[in-house]
Amino acid sequence: MYDCAIIGSGPAGMEAAITLKIRNKSFILIGSKNSSDKVYKAHEVKNYLGLPNISGEDFSKAFLNHLKEMDIEITEDRIAQVYDMGDYYALRGSSDNMYEAKSIIIATGVAQAKPYKGEDDLLGNGVSYCATCDGMLYKNKSVAVVIDSEEELGEVDYLSEITSDITLFPLYKNDLKDYKNVKISNEKILELSTNNNKRVVITENNSYNVDGIFILRKQVPATYLIYGIEMDGSHIKVDRLMSTNLRGVFACGDIVGLPYQYIKAAGEGNVAALSVVKYLGGTKNED
Amino acid sequence: MYDCAIIGSGPAGMEAAITLKIRNKSFILIGSKNSSDKVYKAHEVKNYLGLPNISGEDFSKAFLNHLKEMDIEITEDRIAQVYDMGDYYALRGSSDNMYEAKSIIIATGVAQAKPYKGEDDLLGNGVSYCATCDGMLYKNKSVAVVIDSEEELGEVDYLSEITSDITLFPLYKNDLKDYKNVKISNEKILELSTNNNKRVVITENNSYNVDGIFILRKQVPATYLIYGIEMDGSHIKVDRLMSTNLRGVFACGDIVGLPYQYIKAAGEGNVAALSVVKYLGGTKNED
Repeated sequence: MYDCAIIGSGPAGMEAAITLKIRNKSFILIGSKNSSDKVYKAHEVKNYLGLPNISGEDFSKAFLNHLKEMDIEITEDRIAQVYDMGDYYALRGSSDNMYEAKSIIIATGVAQAKPYKGEDDLLGNGVSYCATCDGMLYKNKSVAVVIDSEEELGEVDYLSEITSDITLFPLYKNDLKDYKNVKISNEKILELSTNNNKRVVITENNSYNVDGIFILRKQVPATYLIYGIEMDGSHIKVDRLMSTNLRGVFACGDIVGLPYQYIKAAGEGNVAALSVVKYLGGTKNED
Repeated sequence: MYDCAIIGSGPAGMEAAITLKIRNKSFILIGSKNSSDKVYKAHEVKNYLGLPNISGEDFSKAFLNHLKEMDIEITEDRIAQVYDMGDYYALRGSSDNMYEAKSIIIATGVAQAKPYKGEDDLLGNGVSYCATCDGMLYKNKSVAVVIDSEEELGEVDYLSEITSDITLFPLYKNDLKDYKNVKISNEKILELSTNNNKRVVITENNSYNVDGIFILRKQVPATYLIYGIEMDGSHIKVDRLMSTNLRGVFACGDIVGLPYQYIKAAGEGNVAALSVVKYLGGTKNED
Protein backbone atom coordinates (compact mmCIF):
# COMPACT_ATOMS: atom_id res chain seq x y z
CA MET A 1 0.00 0.00 0.00
CA TYR A 2 1.63 3.20 -1.20
CA ASP A 3 0.96 6.63 0.23
CA CYS A 4 0.41 7.78 -3.35
CA ALA A 5 0.20 6.42 -6.87
CA ILE A 6 1.28 8.85 -9.58
CA ILE A 7 -0.22 7.99 -12.94
CA GLY A 8 1.89 9.45 -15.73
CA SER A 9 5.63 10.05 -16.00
CA GLY A 10 5.84 13.33 -17.89
CA PRO A 11 7.15 16.52 -16.24
CA ALA A 12 4.13 16.82 -13.91
CA GLY A 13 4.38 13.24 -12.67
CA MET A 14 8.17 13.38 -12.30
CA GLU A 15 8.08 16.62 -10.32
CA ALA A 16 5.35 15.17 -8.10
CA ALA A 17 7.59 12.15 -7.50
CA ILE A 18 10.69 14.11 -6.46
CA THR A 19 8.58 16.26 -4.16
CA LEU A 20 7.01 13.21 -2.48
CA LYS A 21 10.46 11.62 -2.17
CA ILE A 22 11.81 14.69 -0.38
CA ARG A 23 8.80 14.51 1.93
CA ASN A 24 9.50 10.84 2.72
CA LYS A 25 6.25 9.54 1.33
CA SER A 26 6.05 6.12 -0.29
CA PHE A 27 4.79 6.22 -3.85
CA ILE A 28 4.78 4.48 -7.17
CA LEU A 29 5.37 6.43 -10.38
CA ILE A 30 3.62 4.64 -13.21
CA GLY A 31 4.17 5.45 -16.84
CA SER A 32 6.65 5.06 -19.61
CA LYS A 33 10.26 4.22 -18.62
CA ASN A 34 11.65 6.93 -20.85
CA SER A 35 9.25 9.52 -19.43
CA SER A 36 7.31 11.37 -22.09
CA ASP A 37 7.63 10.88 -25.84
CA LYS A 38 6.32 14.39 -26.27
CA VAL A 39 9.25 15.84 -24.31
CA TYR A 40 11.83 13.63 -26.01
CA LYS A 41 10.63 14.57 -29.45
CA ALA A 42 10.40 18.31 -28.75
CA HIS A 43 12.55 20.28 -31.14
CA GLU A 44 13.89 22.79 -28.67
CA VAL A 45 12.56 24.18 -25.43
CA LYS A 46 13.45 27.76 -24.64
CA ASN A 47 11.17 28.72 -21.82
CA TYR A 48 11.96 26.30 -19.00
CA LEU A 49 13.65 28.68 -16.57
CA GLY A 50 17.17 27.52 -15.73
CA LEU A 51 17.60 25.28 -18.78
CA PRO A 52 17.91 27.64 -21.74
CA ASN A 53 17.84 26.45 -25.36
CA ILE A 54 17.67 22.77 -24.61
CA SER A 55 16.78 20.04 -27.07
CA GLY A 56 13.93 17.69 -26.24
CA GLU A 57 16.43 14.87 -25.94
CA ASP A 58 18.67 16.71 -23.44
CA PHE A 59 15.61 17.91 -21.61
CA SER A 60 14.39 14.36 -21.23
CA LYS A 61 17.86 13.32 -20.02
CA ALA A 62 17.95 16.12 -17.44
CA PHE A 63 14.61 14.97 -16.05
CA LEU A 64 15.49 11.28 -15.98
CA ASN A 65 18.85 12.13 -14.42
CA HIS A 66 17.04 14.01 -11.65
CA LEU A 67 14.97 10.89 -10.93
CA LYS A 68 18.11 8.74 -10.96
CA GLU A 69 19.90 11.05 -8.53
CA MET A 70 17.00 10.64 -6.17
CA ASP A 71 16.66 6.87 -6.63
CA ILE A 72 13.23 7.11 -8.18
CA GLU A 73 12.16 4.42 -10.63
CA ILE A 74 9.40 4.58 -13.18
CA THR A 75 7.18 1.51 -13.18
CA GLU A 76 6.36 0.75 -16.80
CA ASP A 77 2.63 0.17 -16.96
CA ARG A 78 -0.58 1.64 -18.22
CA ILE A 79 -3.37 2.14 -15.72
CA ALA A 80 -6.72 1.12 -17.13
CA GLN A 81 -8.91 1.97 -14.20
CA VAL A 82 -8.86 3.30 -10.66
CA TYR A 83 -11.33 2.01 -8.07
CA ASP A 84 -12.40 3.78 -4.92
CA MET A 85 -12.09 1.21 -2.13
CA GLY A 86 -13.37 3.46 0.65
CA ASP A 87 -10.21 4.46 2.45
CA TYR A 88 -7.80 3.69 -0.36
CA TYR A 89 -7.69 3.31 -4.12
CA ALA A 90 -6.96 0.23 -6.23
CA LEU A 91 -5.39 0.68 -9.64
CA ARG A 92 -5.62 -1.86 -12.40
CA GLY A 93 -2.67 -1.92 -14.76
CA SER A 94 -2.16 -4.05 -17.84
CA SER A 95 -1.97 -7.85 -17.47
CA ASP A 96 -4.06 -7.53 -14.31
CA ASN A 97 -1.28 -5.90 -12.28
CA MET A 98 -2.93 -4.30 -9.26
CA TYR A 99 -1.61 -1.47 -7.10
CA GLU A 100 -2.99 0.06 -3.93
CA ALA A 101 -2.51 3.62 -2.74
CA LYS A 102 -3.99 5.99 -0.21
CA SER A 103 -4.02 8.84 -2.70
CA ILE A 104 -3.77 9.39 -6.45
CA ILE A 105 -2.08 11.97 -8.64
CA ILE A 106 -3.35 11.93 -12.22
CA ALA A 107 -0.69 13.32 -14.55
CA THR A 108 -1.50 11.47 -17.75
CA GLY A 109 -1.31 14.40 -20.13
CA VAL A 110 -3.99 14.97 -22.71
CA ALA A 111 -5.20 12.36 -25.11
CA GLN A 112 -3.72 13.16 -28.47
CA ALA A 113 -6.61 11.50 -30.28
CA LYS A 114 -10.11 12.86 -30.23
CA PRO A 115 -12.85 10.39 -29.43
CA TYR A 116 -14.69 8.92 -32.38
CA LYS A 117 -18.08 10.22 -33.28
CA GLY A 118 -20.50 8.17 -31.17
CA GLU A 119 -17.78 6.90 -28.80
CA ASP A 120 -19.02 8.80 -25.76
CA ASP A 121 -22.56 7.49 -26.19
CA LEU A 122 -21.33 3.89 -26.13
CA LEU A 123 -19.26 4.30 -22.98
CA GLY A 124 -20.33 1.52 -20.64
CA ASN A 125 -22.61 0.22 -23.36
CA GLY A 126 -20.35 -1.80 -25.58
CA VAL A 127 -17.22 0.32 -25.69
CA SER A 128 -14.37 -0.55 -23.30
CA TYR A 129 -10.85 0.81 -22.82
CA CYS A 130 -9.50 -2.20 -20.95
CA ALA A 131 -9.27 -5.69 -22.39
CA THR A 132 -8.20 -7.24 -19.10
CA CYS A 133 -11.08 -5.57 -17.26
CA ASP A 134 -13.93 -6.39 -19.59
CA GLY A 135 -12.62 -9.12 -21.89
CA MET A 136 -14.53 -11.92 -20.20
CA LEU A 137 -17.83 -10.24 -21.04
CA TYR A 138 -17.20 -11.20 -24.66
CA LYS A 139 -16.35 -14.89 -24.38
CA ASN A 140 -16.85 -16.40 -27.84
CA LYS A 141 -18.47 -13.22 -29.04
CA SER A 142 -17.35 -10.83 -31.76
CA VAL A 143 -15.23 -7.83 -30.94
CA ALA A 144 -13.57 -4.97 -32.78
CA VAL A 145 -10.29 -3.79 -31.27
CA VAL A 146 -8.68 -0.42 -31.97
CA ILE A 147 -5.00 -0.03 -30.97
CA ASP A 148 -2.72 2.94 -31.46
CA SER A 149 0.65 1.24 -31.06
CA GLU A 150 2.11 -2.25 -31.03
CA GLU A 151 2.42 -1.97 -27.25
CA GLU A 152 -1.26 -2.90 -27.10
CA LEU A 153 -0.78 -6.20 -28.95
CA GLY A 154 -0.45 -7.93 -25.59
CA GLU A 155 -4.03 -7.09 -24.85
CA VAL A 156 -5.05 -8.39 -28.26
CA ASP A 157 -3.30 -11.65 -27.39
CA TYR A 158 -5.34 -11.81 -24.20
CA LEU A 159 -8.60 -11.22 -26.09
CA SER A 160 -7.68 -13.89 -28.64
CA GLU A 161 -7.73 -16.45 -25.82
CA ILE A 162 -11.32 -15.46 -25.06
CA THR A 163 -12.77 -15.26 -28.54
CA SER A 164 -11.65 -16.09 -32.04
CA ASP A 165 -13.85 -13.45 -33.67
CA ILE A 166 -11.67 -10.35 -33.53
CA THR A 167 -11.34 -7.55 -36.07
CA LEU A 168 -8.31 -5.43 -35.33
CA PHE A 169 -7.94 -1.78 -36.38
CA PRO A 170 -4.30 -0.76 -35.90
CA LEU A 171 -4.02 3.04 -36.08
CA TYR A 172 -0.26 3.05 -36.61
CA LYS A 173 1.88 2.07 -39.60
CA ASN A 174 2.06 -1.68 -39.42
CA ASP A 175 2.72 -4.78 -41.44
CA LEU A 176 0.26 -6.95 -39.59
CA LYS A 177 -1.46 -9.41 -41.90
CA ASP A 178 -2.59 -12.54 -40.20
CA TYR A 179 -1.75 -11.71 -36.65
CA LYS A 180 -2.81 -14.76 -34.60
CA ASN A 181 -5.80 -15.40 -36.88
CA VAL A 182 -7.15 -11.96 -36.13
CA LYS A 183 -8.75 -10.11 -39.02
CA ILE A 184 -6.94 -6.87 -39.77
CA SER A 185 -8.55 -3.72 -41.14
CA ASN A 186 -6.49 -0.68 -41.96
CA GLU A 187 -9.58 1.33 -42.89
CA LYS A 188 -10.21 4.67 -41.27
CA ILE A 189 -12.95 4.62 -38.65
CA LEU A 190 -15.55 7.34 -39.13
CA GLU A 191 -18.09 6.59 -36.44
CA LEU A 192 -19.19 4.15 -33.77
CA SER A 193 -22.86 3.32 -33.54
CA THR A 194 -25.43 0.67 -32.62
CA ASN A 195 -27.78 -1.51 -34.66
CA ASN A 196 -30.27 -3.59 -32.68
CA ASN A 197 -28.14 -5.49 -30.18
CA LYS A 198 -24.93 -4.96 -32.09
CA ARG A 199 -22.28 -2.27 -31.96
CA VAL A 200 -21.20 -0.97 -35.33
CA VAL A 201 -17.82 0.28 -36.45
CA ILE A 202 -18.42 2.42 -39.53
CA THR A 203 -15.62 3.04 -42.02
CA GLU A 204 -15.84 4.74 -45.39
CA ASN A 205 -16.67 1.54 -47.27
CA ASN A 206 -17.82 -0.89 -44.61
CA SER A 207 -19.65 -1.31 -41.39
CA TYR A 208 -18.64 -3.98 -38.92
CA ASN A 209 -21.32 -5.38 -36.61
CA VAL A 210 -19.80 -6.69 -33.38
CA ASP A 211 -20.77 -7.41 -29.79
CA GLY A 212 -18.13 -5.20 -28.25
CA ILE A 213 -15.57 -2.58 -29.14
CA PHE A 214 -12.24 -2.21 -27.33
CA ILE A 215 -10.41 1.07 -27.82
CA LEU A 216 -6.88 0.60 -26.48
CA ARG A 217 -5.07 3.92 -26.56
CA LYS A 218 -2.06 4.99 -24.55
CA GLN A 219 -4.24 7.45 -22.74
CA VAL A 220 -7.45 6.30 -21.20
CA PRO A 221 -10.05 9.10 -21.03
CA ALA A 222 -10.09 10.51 -17.51
CA THR A 223 -13.82 9.94 -17.10
CA TYR A 224 -13.23 6.24 -17.70
CA LEU A 225 -10.00 6.08 -15.72
CA ILE A 226 -11.75 7.06 -12.50
CA TYR A 227 -15.45 7.06 -11.95
CA GLY A 228 -17.20 10.31 -11.06
CA ILE A 229 -14.32 12.70 -11.65
CA GLU A 230 -15.53 16.17 -12.48
CA MET A 231 -14.43 17.55 -15.82
CA ASP A 232 -14.24 21.02 -17.28
CA GLY A 233 -14.62 20.28 -20.97
CA SER A 234 -11.91 17.80 -21.86
CA HIS A 235 -9.84 18.63 -18.77
CA ILE A 236 -10.07 17.44 -15.18
CA LYS A 237 -11.40 20.24 -13.02
CA VAL A 238 -9.02 21.23 -10.22
CA ASP A 239 -8.70 24.08 -7.78
CA ARG A 240 -5.50 26.04 -7.23
CA LEU A 241 -4.17 23.30 -4.96
CA MET A 242 -4.74 20.70 -7.71
CA SER A 243 -7.55 18.98 -5.81
CA THR A 244 -10.22 17.27 -7.89
CA ASN A 245 -13.78 16.73 -6.67
CA LEU A 246 -12.75 13.29 -5.37
CA ARG A 247 -11.24 12.89 -1.91
CA GLY A 248 -7.53 12.07 -2.12
CA VAL A 249 -7.40 12.44 -5.89
CA PHE A 250 -5.25 15.23 -7.34
CA ALA A 251 -4.36 16.07 -10.92
CA CYS A 252 -1.72 18.17 -12.66
CA GLY A 253 -0.15 18.93 -16.00
CA ASP A 254 -1.81 19.08 -19.40
CA ILE A 255 -4.80 17.03 -18.21
CA VAL A 256 -5.96 19.93 -16.01
CA GLY A 257 -5.91 22.54 -18.75
CA LEU A 258 -4.10 24.97 -21.00
CA PRO A 259 -1.44 26.17 -21.49
CA TYR A 260 0.37 22.92 -22.36
CA GLN A 261 3.82 23.88 -21.06
CA TYR A 262 6.49 21.86 -19.28
CA ILE A 263 7.26 24.41 -16.60
CA LYS A 264 3.57 24.85 -15.83
CA ALA A 265 3.13 21.07 -15.65
CA ALA A 266 6.16 20.69 -13.35
CA GLY A 267 4.94 23.51 -11.08
CA GLU A 268 1.55 21.86 -10.79
CA GLY A 269 3.17 18.49 -10.06
CA ASN A 270 4.91 20.11 -7.11
CA VAL A 271 1.66 21.62 -5.82
CA ALA A 272 -0.23 18.34 -6.26
CA ALA A 273 2.44 16.44 -4.31
CA LEU A 274 2.38 18.92 -1.44
CA SER A 275 -1.41 18.69 -1.39
CA VAL A 276 -1.03 14.91 -1.10
CA VAL A 277 1.34 15.41 1.83
CA LYS A 278 -1.27 17.60 3.47
CA TYR A 279 -4.04 15.10 2.66
CA LEU A 280 -2.06 12.27 4.24
CA GLY A 281 -1.92 14.30 7.42
CA GLY A 282 1.59 15.49 7.00
CA THR A 283 3.09 18.80 7.83
CA LYS A 284 2.06 22.15 6.47
CA ASN A 285 1.88 22.68 2.73
CA GLU A 286 5.36 24.17 2.35
CA ASP A 287 8.88 22.97 1.87
CA MET B 1 4.82 52.09 -23.77
CA TYR B 2 5.55 48.44 -23.07
CA ASP B 3 3.17 45.57 -23.82
CA CYS B 4 3.74 44.43 -20.25
CA ALA B 5 5.49 45.50 -17.07
CA ILE B 6 6.64 42.64 -14.85
CA ILE B 7 7.03 43.71 -11.24
CA GLY B 8 9.41 41.37 -9.45
CA SER B 9 12.46 39.47 -10.67
CA GLY B 10 12.25 36.19 -8.77
CA PRO B 11 11.55 32.89 -10.53
CA ALA B 12 7.96 33.85 -11.43
CA GLY B 13 8.93 37.20 -12.94
CA MET B 14 11.93 35.76 -14.80
CA GLU B 15 9.92 32.92 -16.30
CA ALA B 16 7.22 35.41 -17.35
CA ALA B 17 9.94 37.49 -19.04
CA ILE B 18 11.43 34.65 -21.07
CA THR B 19 7.97 33.56 -22.16
CA LEU B 20 7.06 37.10 -23.29
CA LYS B 21 10.38 37.37 -25.10
CA ILE B 22 9.70 34.18 -27.03
CA ARG B 23 6.31 35.58 -27.93
CA ASN B 24 7.88 38.82 -29.22
CA LYS B 25 6.16 41.09 -26.74
CA SER B 26 7.85 44.22 -25.45
CA PHE B 27 8.21 44.30 -21.69
CA ILE B 28 10.17 45.66 -18.79
CA LEU B 29 11.27 43.37 -15.97
CA ILE B 30 11.57 45.45 -12.82
CA GLY B 31 13.22 44.22 -9.67
CA SER B 32 16.58 43.49 -8.18
CA LYS B 33 19.50 43.05 -10.60
CA ASN B 34 20.61 39.88 -8.90
CA SER B 35 17.11 38.41 -9.02
CA SER B 36 15.89 37.15 -5.67
CA ASP B 37 17.85 37.21 -2.43
CA LYS B 38 15.68 34.39 -1.24
CA VAL B 39 16.84 32.15 -4.11
CA TYR B 40 20.48 33.14 -3.76
CA LYS B 41 20.52 32.43 -0.06
CA ALA B 42 18.72 29.09 -0.32
CA HIS B 43 20.80 26.30 1.13
CA GLU B 44 20.04 23.68 -1.46
CA VAL B 45 17.12 23.12 -3.76
CA LYS B 46 16.26 19.52 -4.57
CA ASN B 47 12.87 19.66 -6.15
CA TYR B 48 13.25 21.85 -9.22
CA LEU B 49 12.85 19.22 -11.93
CA GLY B 50 15.89 19.12 -14.20
CA LEU B 51 18.29 20.82 -11.78
CA PRO B 52 18.90 18.27 -9.02
CA ASN B 53 20.73 19.12 -5.79
CA ILE B 54 21.59 22.66 -6.69
CA SER B 55 22.82 25.33 -4.29
CA GLY B 56 20.91 28.58 -4.09
CA GLU B 57 23.88 30.36 -5.60
CA ASP B 58 24.11 28.06 -8.63
CA PHE B 59 20.37 28.17 -8.98
CA SER B 60 20.44 31.92 -9.09
CA LYS B 61 23.24 31.77 -11.69
CA ALA B 62 21.29 29.32 -13.86
CA PHE B 63 18.32 31.69 -13.86
CA LEU B 64 20.34 34.82 -14.58
CA ASN B 65 22.24 32.97 -17.28
CA HIS B 66 18.93 32.07 -18.92
CA LEU B 67 18.00 35.76 -19.00
CA LYS B 68 21.41 36.65 -20.41
CA GLU B 69 21.13 34.05 -23.16
CA MET B 70 17.87 35.66 -24.17
CA ASP B 71 19.12 39.24 -23.91
CA ILE B 72 16.75 40.12 -21.09
CA GLU B 73 17.80 42.81 -18.64
CA ILE B 74 16.46 43.44 -15.19
CA THR B 75 15.66 47.10 -14.52
CA GLU B 76 16.73 47.83 -10.95
CA ASP B 77 13.86 49.68 -9.36
CA ARG B 78 11.13 49.35 -6.78
CA ILE B 79 7.58 50.05 -7.90
CA ALA B 80 5.70 52.07 -5.33
CA GLN B 81 2.37 52.30 -7.06
CA VAL B 82 0.51 51.33 -10.20
CA TYR B 83 -2.17 53.61 -11.64
CA ASP B 84 -4.98 52.58 -13.94
CA MET B 85 -4.93 55.10 -16.82
CA GLY B 86 -7.92 53.66 -18.64
CA ASP B 87 -6.38 51.75 -21.50
CA TYR B 88 -2.94 51.39 -19.97
CA TYR B 89 -1.17 51.41 -16.62
CA ALA B 90 1.40 53.86 -15.25
CA LEU B 91 3.96 52.62 -12.73
CA ARG B 92 5.78 54.84 -10.33
CA GLY B 93 9.25 53.69 -9.40
CA SER B 94 11.67 55.26 -6.96
CA SER B 95 13.05 58.76 -7.66
CA ASP B 96 9.90 59.45 -9.68
CA ASN B 97 10.82 57.08 -12.51
CA MET B 98 7.64 56.41 -14.48
CA TYR B 99 6.87 53.46 -16.76
CA GLU B 100 3.87 52.79 -18.96
CA ALA B 101 2.53 49.40 -19.97
CA LYS B 102 -0.59 47.90 -21.47
CA SER B 103 -0.61 45.07 -18.96
CA ILE B 104 0.91 44.16 -15.62
CA ILE B 105 2.30 41.00 -14.10
CA ILE B 106 2.71 41.20 -10.33
CA ALA B 107 5.40 38.78 -9.17
CA THR B 108 6.67 40.54 -6.08
CA GLY B 109 6.77 37.57 -3.75
CA VAL B 110 5.35 37.80 -0.28
CA ALA B 111 6.23 40.45 2.20
CA GLN B 112 8.54 38.91 4.74
CA ALA B 113 7.45 41.35 7.41
CA LYS B 114 3.99 41.35 8.91
CA PRO B 115 2.25 44.71 9.06
CA TYR B 116 2.44 46.50 12.39
CA LYS B 117 -0.52 46.44 14.67
CA GLY B 118 -2.67 49.38 13.56
CA GLU B 119 -0.88 49.76 10.21
CA ASP B 120 -3.82 48.68 8.09
CA ASP B 121 -6.15 51.15 9.80
CA LEU B 122 -3.85 54.04 8.96
CA LEU B 123 -3.54 53.18 5.28
CA GLY B 124 -4.38 56.35 3.35
CA ASN B 125 -4.71 58.13 6.65
CA GLY B 126 -1.18 59.02 7.61
CA VAL B 127 0.72 55.91 6.61
CA SER B 128 2.45 55.89 3.23
CA TYR B 129 4.70 53.41 1.48
CA CYS B 130 6.19 55.86 -1.01
CA ALA B 131 8.25 58.90 -0.09
CA THR B 132 8.37 60.23 -3.62
CA CYS B 133 4.60 59.84 -4.01
CA ASP B 134 3.45 61.46 -0.79
CA GLY B 135 6.46 63.35 0.57
CA MET B 136 5.17 66.79 -0.44
CA LEU B 137 2.13 66.33 1.81
CA TYR B 138 4.47 66.70 4.78
CA LYS B 139 6.43 69.86 3.89
CA ASN B 140 7.95 71.17 7.13
CA LYS B 141 5.92 68.69 9.13
CA SER B 142 7.09 65.85 11.33
CA VAL B 143 7.46 62.34 9.97
CA ALA B 144 8.55 58.95 11.20
CA VAL B 145 10.28 56.80 8.59
CA VAL B 146 10.70 53.03 8.84
CA ILE B 147 13.24 51.43 6.49
CA ASP B 148 14.27 47.80 6.23
CA SER B 149 17.57 48.20 4.37
CA GLU B 150 20.05 50.90 3.48
CA GLU B 151 18.68 50.85 -0.06
CA GLU B 152 15.87 53.05 1.20
CA LEU B 153 18.21 55.78 2.45
CA GLY B 154 17.78 57.56 -0.89
CA GLU B 155 14.14 58.11 -0.05
CA VAL B 156 15.14 59.40 3.36
CA ASP B 157 17.44 61.89 1.60
CA TYR B 158 14.50 63.03 -0.48
CA LEU B 159 12.30 63.50 2.59
CA SER B 160 15.07 65.43 4.34
CA GLU B 161 14.81 68.06 1.60
CA ILE B 162 11.12 68.50 2.42
CA THR B 163 11.24 68.54 6.19
CA SER B 164 13.90 68.62 8.84
CA ASP B 165 11.75 66.84 11.44
CA ILE B 166 12.42 63.20 10.69
CA THR B 167 12.69 60.28 13.09
CA LEU B 168 14.18 57.27 11.35
CA PHE B 169 13.58 53.67 12.45
CA PRO B 170 16.09 51.46 10.64
CA LEU B 171 15.01 47.81 10.97
CA TYR B 172 18.39 46.41 9.95
CA LYS B 173 21.74 46.28 11.74
CA ASN B 174 23.17 49.71 11.20
CA ASP B 175 25.67 52.18 12.53
CA LEU B 176 23.66 55.24 11.66
CA LYS B 177 24.04 57.97 14.27
CA ASP B 178 23.50 61.43 12.95
CA TYR B 179 22.51 60.61 9.42
CA LYS B 180 21.88 64.01 7.74
CA ASN B 181 20.54 65.50 10.95
CA VAL B 182 17.86 62.85 11.09
CA LYS B 183 17.00 61.49 14.54
CA ILE B 184 17.65 57.76 14.73
CA SER B 185 15.71 55.31 16.88
CA ASN B 186 16.67 51.68 17.03
CA GLU B 187 13.73 50.86 19.30
CA LYS B 188 11.33 48.11 18.33
CA ILE B 189 7.98 49.37 17.05
CA LEU B 190 5.02 47.73 18.75
CA GLU B 191 2.06 49.54 17.26
CA LEU B 192 0.94 52.42 15.08
CA SER B 193 -1.94 54.56 16.29
CA THR B 194 -3.51 58.01 16.27
CA ASN B 195 -3.88 60.69 18.87
CA ASN B 196 -6.06 63.68 17.92
CA ASN B 197 -4.57 64.89 14.62
CA LYS B 198 -1.28 63.11 15.13
CA ARG B 199 -0.09 59.68 14.17
CA VAL B 200 1.72 57.80 16.90
CA VAL B 201 4.58 55.32 16.68
CA ILE B 202 4.53 53.30 19.87
CA THR B 203 7.66 51.52 21.09
CA GLU B 204 8.23 49.74 24.38
CA ASN B 205 9.46 52.86 26.16
CA ASN B 206 8.31 55.76 24.00
CA SER B 207 5.60 57.08 21.77
CA TYR B 208 6.43 59.38 18.91
CA ASN B 209 3.74 61.82 17.77
CA VAL B 210 4.19 62.76 14.13
CA ASP B 211 2.17 64.05 11.17
CA GLY B 212 2.98 61.19 8.87
CA ILE B 213 4.54 57.74 8.88
CA PHE B 214 6.48 56.33 5.92
CA ILE B 215 7.03 52.60 5.87
CA LEU B 216 9.61 51.88 3.20
CA ARG B 217 9.95 48.13 2.80
CA LYS B 218 11.29 46.23 -0.16
CA GLN B 219 7.83 44.87 -0.72
CA VAL B 220 4.91 47.22 -0.91
CA PRO B 221 1.65 45.54 0.19
CA ALA B 222 -0.32 44.51 -2.90
CA THR B 223 -3.41 46.40 -1.81
CA TYR B 224 -1.37 49.59 -1.78
CA LEU B 225 0.62 48.75 -4.91
CA ILE B 226 -2.50 48.71 -7.05
CA TYR B 227 -5.86 50.05 -6.05
CA GLY B 228 -8.84 47.72 -5.91
CA ILE B 229 -7.04 44.44 -6.34
CA GLU B 230 -8.96 41.55 -4.83
CA MET B 231 -7.15 39.62 -2.12
CA ASP B 232 -7.63 36.20 -0.59
CA GLY B 233 -6.22 36.74 2.87
CA SER B 234 -2.69 38.02 2.37
CA HIS B 235 -2.49 36.76 -1.21
CA ILE B 236 -3.71 38.23 -4.47
CA LYS B 237 -6.70 36.25 -5.69
CA VAL B 238 -6.17 34.70 -9.13
CA ASP B 239 -7.91 32.14 -11.27
CA ARG B 240 -6.13 29.21 -12.89
CA LEU B 241 -4.95 31.46 -15.71
CA MET B 242 -3.40 33.89 -13.19
CA SER B 243 -5.92 36.64 -13.90
CA THR B 244 -6.74 38.99 -11.05
CA ASN B 245 -10.02 40.86 -10.78
CA LEU B 246 -8.46 43.81 -12.65
CA ARG B 247 -8.44 43.91 -16.45
CA GLY B 248 -4.95 43.36 -17.83
CA VAL B 249 -3.45 42.66 -14.41
CA PHE B 250 -2.05 39.19 -13.74
CA ALA B 251 -0.14 37.81 -10.77
CA CYS B 252 2.03 34.78 -10.09
CA GLY B 253 4.46 33.26 -7.63
CA ASP B 254 4.38 33.44 -3.85
CA ILE B 255 2.12 36.50 -3.87
CA VAL B 256 -0.79 34.38 -5.18
CA GLY B 257 -0.56 31.73 -2.51
CA LEU B 258 1.01 28.65 -1.02
CA PRO B 259 3.04 26.54 -1.54
CA TYR B 260 6.05 28.85 -1.75
CA GLN B 261 8.07 26.85 -4.23
CA TYR B 262 10.34 27.90 -7.09
CA ILE B 263 8.99 25.46 -9.64
CA LYS B 264 5.42 26.43 -8.82
CA ALA B 265 6.32 30.12 -9.12
CA ALA B 266 8.06 29.59 -12.46
CA GLY B 267 5.14 27.56 -13.82
CA GLU B 268 2.75 30.32 -12.84
CA GLY B 269 4.99 32.94 -14.43
CA ASN B 270 4.70 31.06 -17.68
CA VAL B 271 0.91 30.89 -17.43
CA ALA B 272 0.64 34.59 -16.52
CA ALA B 273 2.78 35.57 -19.53
CA LEU B 274 0.69 33.49 -21.90
CA SER B 275 -2.44 35.07 -20.44
CA VAL B 276 -0.89 38.48 -21.16
CA VAL B 277 -0.27 37.40 -24.76
CA LYS B 278 -3.90 36.42 -25.01
CA TYR B 279 -5.03 39.66 -23.37
CA LEU B 280 -2.99 41.70 -25.82
CA GLY B 281 -4.88 40.01 -28.61
CA GLY B 282 -2.15 37.63 -29.54
CA THR B 283 -2.40 34.08 -30.68
CA LYS B 284 -3.87 31.20 -28.76
CA ASN B 285 -2.73 30.49 -25.24
CA GLU B 286 -0.17 27.83 -26.13
CA ASP B 287 3.41 27.70 -27.21
